[in-house]
Amino acid sequence: MAHKVSPLAPAAFPELPPVAGVRLAAAETGIRYKNRPDVLLAVMEPGTTVAGCFTRSKSRSAPVDWCVDSLKGGTARAVVINAGNANAFTGKAGVATVTAVAKSAAALLKCKPTEIFQASTGVIGEPLNPAFITGALQKLSAEAEPDRWAAAAKAIMTTDTFPKASTITAKLGGRRVTINGIAKGSGMIAPDMATMLVFIFTDAAIPPKILQKLLVKAVNPSFNCITVDGDTSTSDTVLMFATGAAGGALKALKSAGDARLKGFAKALDTLCMDLAHQVAKDGEGAEKFIEIAITGAENDTAAHRIAMSVANSPLVKTAIAGEDANWGRVVMAIGKAGEKAIRDKLKIRIGGITVAKNGMRDPAYKEAEIMPHMKGRDIVIEADVGVAKGRARVWTCDLTHAYIDINGSYRS
Amino acid sequence: MAHKVSPLAPAAFPELPPVAGVRLAAAETGIRYKNRPDVLLAVMEPGTTVAGCFTRSKSRSAPVDWCVDSLKGGTARAVVINAGNANAFTGKAGVATVTAVAKSAAALLKCKPTEIFQASTGVIGEPLNPAFITGALQKLSAEAEPDRWAAAAKAIMTTDTFPKASTITAKLGGRRVTINGIAKGSGMIAPDMATMLVFIFTDAAIPPKILQKLLVKAVNPSFNCITVDGDTSTSDTVLMFATGAAGGALKALKSAGDARLKGFAKALDTLCMDLAHQVAKDGEGAEKFIEIAITGAENDTAAHRIAMSVANSPLVKTAIAGEDANWGRVVMAIGKAGEKAIRDKLKIRIGGITVAKNGMRDPAYKEAEIMPHMKGRDIVIEADVGVAKGRARVWTCDLTHAYIDINGSYRS
Repeated sequence: MAHKVSPLAPAAFPELPPVAGVRLAAAETGIRYKNRPDVLLAVMEPGTTVAGCFTRSKSRSAPVDWCVDSLKGGTARAVVINAGNANAFTGKAGVATVTAVAKSAAALLKCKPTEIFQASTGVIGEPLNPAFITGALQKLSAEAEPDRWAAAAKAIMTTDTFPKASTITAKLGGRRVTINGIAKGSGMIAPDMATMLVFIFTDAAIPPKILQKLLVKAVNPSFNCITVDGDTSTSDTVLMFATGAAGGALKALKSAGDARLKGFAKALDTLCMDLAHQVAKDGEGAEKFIEIAITGAENDTAAHRIAMSVANSPLVKTAIAGEDANWGRVVMAIGKAGEKAIRDKLKIRIGGITVAKNGMRDPAYKEAEIMPHMKGRDIVIEADVGVAKGRARVWTCDLTHAYIDINGSYRS
Repeated sequence: MAHKVSPLAPAAFPELPPVAGVRLAAAETGIRYKNRPDVLLAVMEPGTTVAGCFTRSKSRSAPVDWCVDSLKGGTARAVVINAGNANAFTGKAGVATVTAVAKSAAALLKCKPTEIFQASTGVIGEPLNPAFITGALQKLSAEAEPDRWAAAAKAIMTTDTFPKASTITAKLGGRRVTINGIAKGSGMIAPDMATMLVFIFTDAAIPPKILQKLLVKAVNPSFNCITVDGDTSTSDTVLMFATGAAGGALKALKSAGDARLKGFAKALDTLCMDLAHQVAKDGEGAEKFIEIAITGAENDTAAHRIAMSVANSPLVKTAIAGEDANWGRVVMAIGKAGEKAIRDKLKIRIGGITVAKNGMRDPAYKEAEIMPHMKGRDIVIEADVGVAKGRARVWTCDLTHAYIDINGSYRS
């Protein structure tokens, strides 16, 4: 299971400051992995609001069902996350597990079970014995501290090769507030999130409905615009918690569009984009980070579909792995998206160099000019499909031998 | 470019008898490949009828455009096929090339240019100089013989590791008629055909409209139910030619449903299924042939979408490559298809062994029992999604290192 760290990983794990009202602890419980933390508990102060976005899979996991239901309450006291077992497709036993974990944590924290949020990632279809988690909760809640971000990011990893975190601050209600986020990838990252778990914590005071709107707005252009292999997990989860511990009452906040939220919303967007890019950069076996920008589509939705068609094309992704500027495969992937594209107006640029226009190779294009770009870590493919003004940007990684190494032996 | 022959290849190239009214010749013209035939000419007797099915790509190649237009005439005198260059995304130059080839062949055969059908496969976006082909046509038409099936199947290969052909006979109008088919794969085989070229020849006498209906009916459950990587070519083409040289007038044939056509239709279905399976078995890097059978879907279309979602999932395909009965990934792929599936009624069988039912692992399932099946060449995955009676069967292959080797260096 030990794979080399992605060459696209950040140089170092970022310094995350405490978020007032949040304490964290991780433990090794041996659910599947040995000698590494696999359960994370984050405890939040009473009054913490919560928002969430989840997988669109039709066979979502028991923890996702639990979170969707619990979100209606609008408040949270803790989130419990485990790696190694997704508690997905586990039938009634899966429901019993999340219920047992929620009750156990709620008893410790003296809150309602629906204030205990949960996420599980790992193998599908294996029963998850709640005792691994419930047996660790008391110690975890006693040991939880505000400065355990690195351990937290590590505890939720599966085939990730580096822990993912990001931090940013913003002004809100006259105070400086902090937003911290941790994430795990790294396969099944599409079309909308996928085995991706993201947990965002802020000390801002934001009502749950407004927090939900801000989160959706931040998730759409970031986590919903990355893909590794087109596969979608049963467990995708983005949860955001706002403790309000920074103070600075904003009781009069009536909508997510309130001008006072502008800086906060922008910071949240930035944080989500950073984490989303980190996830794509740790796509299983990734050697190159690829941006696909589509313009000229019938509308933005069509542009997104075309971009995802290119981003998920194994032929495009293997060509990039081979440092081959095979733009013919980009044409193919645009063509198969099923969206309007005017072949004889198609324009394609790679690394800023026009390779094709007016439905054919640019006569001025010389493949040698593009080679330095293809040999780099960051590949940019732009295509204008010549129909209207729809545009989209998505991110992915290349498809390499390591993807097959990792996924051909995940369970062994 | 020399890759080892697929372990799923038939033991030997089949013996194809002549088809009355068809003569074939192949030549080395050096379009891209060296030391192998790369242009095929098949000449048919006057009066030959023609039918065709083509890619649904929005950026289809110049030869596909040409064939779609020419099909309206209903008759054919020749088909010219080249490998190494797809003549796709080549703008006006591409149109000029197909026009030049058609005129040149039509002059030789003294027919209308629209009776010259064409297909090109290979690299996209490179201009194809018609002189390679037109310069070879005179010799090809002079040398064409009825017994050149093996050379014909070889001339249309790109990354195929074995030539693909099939033959069958049927009774029609009191005579025995022959149907021969040749095909090339082997990436981009989805969702509907993809860089797949198939040419079917029969000496039966069938009017073009009826031939078209029979062909569509045969293509739907065969070529439209195979996938290698979910990628769709700009060039997919299935063409069928009926010379009528077997005699036995069937002038009174009014519909494809005519009882006299039953045996012929069944033979055509069988031939298409055989060729389709050969294409999937030569999927780039294929080590295992996978059948996905979905039942219990809302309708047959939904079942097909679910089956394709499983068949195209890189995580399912890499698990099978690793001989891992990771049915959790099958659950994931069913869930992401976006079609109705009742999680708590889901039933999954692999190699005939029930691994999951009622939304969870079958308590009686032992992974060891399934290992002999996983280690074999033919993998069968069945899933019932518990909604209604829709059903579908599709075929694919596993995803291995060789896929990346082949596609990371296709042009080099």
